[in-house]
Amino acid sequence: MKATVFVTVKENVLDPQGKAVQGALHSMGFDEVGEVRIGKYMELNLDTNDALVAEERVRTMCEKLLANTVIEDYRFELKGE
Amino acid sequence: MKATVFVTVKENVLDPQGKAVQGALHSMGFDEVGEVRIGKYMELNLDTNDALVAEERVRTMCEKLLANTVIEDYRFELKGE
Repeated sequence: MKATVFVTVKENVLDPQGKAVQGALHSMGFDEVGEVRIGKYMELNLDTNDALVAEERVRTMCEKLLANTVIEDYRFELKGE
Repeated sequence: MKATVFVTVKENVLDPQGKAVQGALHSMGFDEVGEVRIGKYMELNLDTNDALVAEERVRTMCEKLLANTVIEDYRFELKGE
């Protein structure tokens, strides 16, 4: 199955990369752009068919490696083959 | 309205960041992990209510700044307030 993981900077944490992109868009004339938040998007192929086990494993991967839970939130979706 | 933009490395382009994460997960005992692809996930607040205009504008932002269309694909979703 396939896991899609989204990692985003927490609401109350500054996102300098987003600020930079917002500034660049403004300087290009896209004045309608307000706040920009940038995160990561990951696709993992998993060699397992047990959705419950996969959910538990992906959660552990996020906690231990994929997200820095001090400043980032994560969520993920699982899709069977 | 809000635009959610996903930028991913094209299928036939190497993703060294994904390879690194895959290696790290393997070394942590997550042997079920196959290919990993890493992309960007962006949320843009837009000060507009016209979905057709917004779609055209966000497409231009992707083409000009948010994605490197030589090696990256992008897709986006618009959500009204």
